[in-house]
Amino acid sequence: MKAISVLGSTGSIGTQTLQIAEEFPDQFRVVALSAGRNLPLLVEQIKTHKPEAVALADSSLLPELKERLQNLSKENQAIRVPKLLGGNEGLNEVAAWDHADLVVTGIVGCAGLLPTLAAIRAGKDLALANKETLIAAGPVVLPELKRTGSRLLPADSEHSAIFQCLQGTPWAENARLSTGVPTPGLRRIQLTASGGAFREWSIEELKKATIEDATKHPNWSMGRKITVDSATLMNKGLEVIEAHYLFGLDYEHIEIVIHPQSIIHSMIELADSSVLAQLGWPDMKLPILYCMSWPSRLQTPWRRLDLTEVAELTFKAPNTKKYPCMELAYSAGKTGGTMPAVLNAANEEAVKQFLEEKIHFLDIPRLIEKACENHKSDLKYKPSLNDIILVDHWAREEITREVKKGSILISNQGLTI
Amino acid sequence: MKAISVLGSTGSIGTQTLQIAEEFPDQFRVVALSAGRNLPLLVEQIKTHKPEAVALADSSLLPELKERLQNLSKENQAIRVPKLLGGNEGLNEVAAWDHADLVVTGIVGCAGLLPTLAAIRAGKDLALANKETLIAAGPVVLPELKRTGSRLLPADSEHSAIFQCLQGTPWAENARLSTGVPTPGLRRIQLTASGGAFREWSIEELKKATIEDATKHPNWSMGRKITVDSATLMNKGLEVIEAHYLFGLDYEHIEIVIHPQSIIHSMIELADSSVLAQLGWPDMKLPILYCMSWPSRLQTPWRRLDLTEVAELTFKAPNTKKYPCMELAYSAGKTGGTMPAVLNAANEEAVKQFLEEKIHFLDIPRLIEKACENHKSDLKYKPSLNDIILVDHWAREEITREVKKGSILISNQGLTI
Repeated sequence: MKAISVLGSTGSIGTQTLQIAEEFPDQFRVVALSAGRNLPLLVEQIKTHKPEAVALADSSLLPELKERLQNLSKENQAIRVPKLLGGNEGLNEVAAWDHADLVVTGIVGCAGLLPTLAAIRAGKDLALANKETLIAAGPVVLPELKRTGSRLLPADSEHSAIFQCLQGTPWAENARLSTGVPTPGLRRIQLTASGGAFREWSIEELKKATIEDATKHPNWSMGRKITVDSATLMNKGLEVIEAHYLFGLDYEHIEIVIHPQSIIHSMIELADSSVLAQLGWPDMKLPILYCMSWPSRLQTPWRRLDLTEVAELTFKAPNTKKYPCMELAYSAGKTGGTMPAVLNAANEEAVKQFLEEKIHFLDIPRLIEKACENHKSDLKYKPSLNDIILVDHWAREEITREVKKGSILISNQGLTI
Repeated sequence: MKAISVLGSTGSIGTQTLQIAEEFPDQFRVVALSAGRNLPLLVEQIKTHKPEAVALADSSLLPELKERLQNLSKENQAIRVPKLLGGNEGLNEVAAWDHADLVVTGIVGCAGLLPTLAAIRAGKDLALANKETLIAAGPVVLPELKRTGSRLLPADSEHSAIFQCLQGTPWAENARLSTGVPTPGLRRIQLTASGGAFREWSIEELKKATIEDATKHPNWSMGRKITVDSATLMNKGLEVIEAHYLFGLDYEHIEIVIHPQSIIHSMIELADSSVLAQLGWPDMKLPILYCMSWPSRLQTPWRRLDLTEVAELTFKAPNTKKYPCMELAYSAGKTGGTMPAVLNAANEEAVKQFLEEKIHFLDIPRLIEKACENHKSDLKYKPSLNDIILVDHWAREEITREVKKGSILISNQGLTI
């Protein structure tokens, strides 16, 4: 029986993790939860899973949560009020919860960084769905992992595919999981990309892209921000940086291939030229379950892949002109230090501005490129955690300033690209 | 440094094995060879690899081989005449050669069975390219493997793909290789089939199939017999039986999927619904190398897979009406005992008669079906090696008799299907 702590329990990854825990009650016990603001769902989760501790990011909601739970407890004696915690300290306490064997970190964005670090510092194994941990804070996180023996299990479908394929290699035998250390015999990673909402659009047509267009993902059901990242291919660019840190491979050996059907979740090429791939329907439950059951696999009744139904898997090289964000990510990754943190924060802010209809879709890469360019003179190669948090703030402000200034923005009336 | 003994050194698998040994002189040393009749090539191989022992299946050629080698030895003092052996005993001695760590069994057909058994009885690890060992003699071979601890490494591309994918499963961890034992966590095997020479032909068009048509394989360069087996899909049917013995899976969990590009070499589905696949260009060198290097992988400069060049992988369910041999193989496999030996021998003889222009392409399944039907009353569920050899002879004679009788044969003029 594995004890699980879930960070971001009311989000997409969190709710799916709890569904899996419910589906396998003999395998998993949920001991701690943290959530943002969604009290009704959180209360339901507490009723179902009876965790020992619960943290709310927004402490001002704690009294309300307490009251709801006390009322419930009066109605039903089986429900006891868990230890209630609030704010960053509360999140950190849940992340490092003593009884937890595995911490699932489903908090999106830079907000997930500190609790994830708290889990690492407590030596926990992590199911990592929070990209920022490695992308922004790789230089800080890697030495901490080495020091505490905490192991990162990738929960997103691409890195899970690579991780699954690597299980049978000497890497898995010798080290099992040593994030950031070059993987013996691993010669190339190919991350598959659906191509996002605009995969069939020409560059010319992209000039007319609206928010509605950008937030319709063809294969995966995800949040709006990640769906826009799929449309710009920044999502894949960030995954390249994450793969670099997770599997210790140089950027020139990490490739992106457009695979619109999202059936092959990623591939590895081994030293002898053999290629291994992991396949499945586009569903986040499998990679999450694999983190939870690893190194075992559990029997599921989930829908089985039928390639005769899919009939056709296609592949093409990504168009770098159409997807400039991809190249920006490679460039930031190769620069290293604080640059990926700037790339990530600038992207988050630019996408936010796009979703608020303040900028055009094609402004996203322009703004990010400018922020990265402007950061060059302040780049730190061996940043502290504080440095990373500072550049994260700086990059977001930089984007806001540029948007206010408006000088490099495309107007919807007069596109010039 | 691994010491290798090669059975069938002048055949397709044998020559590729020796090419690999030449490509990795620090890894492999060839200590013994056996060949059929191709003296010029065998002499070249002896010059290059300097084996300790050489066996010729046809003993009558031994004096000529000896003379050629003695003359060479006079010209070049570096070439010493190896121990020369002849006939079945000679093949068995090479198969069980004391200094060999791994025996590559590349002898095609039932002729390979006895030497392969000799290697198993000597406790050698085997790179198995000889299908008959398991298909015809599975019930005899499995207990011998268990007794001696000899391990079967599959050298054909499909079973190698499955074997590679299985490396990271609990199966690999616990048992590594225990042929015939159910594999924990392995829920389904999908063997990919190119569809052979007639994959684009309708059943109607098959009535006009000639030898020339049947021996043109679209993807793989192989011998004529195996190319015809690809055209009937009997090849895949035999692989289903082999997979059943190798990986201990019931027939209802071993499927065939038509995949004309031959890039995915086969797939496994694990308990949690995850699918793993092994991919590569259609080239036998990789599966042979993997047998030789297993459990390691060696660095090769071989052509790297480029899926953007392939562009498209397609899949469809096989048409059982078009490929009746496939169903005959499933049926014989499920019956078990001596039936797969009859299927295999009847197929070999029927293909021979087809290549000699004595029967029509569509007669092949008819003849095999009749032989299997006629064998039912003599079926042995726990056959001895002798039983298997006897039914093998019987089935070949049965086909010859039917062809002479001609009663069930299709005439090219009056096709009735």
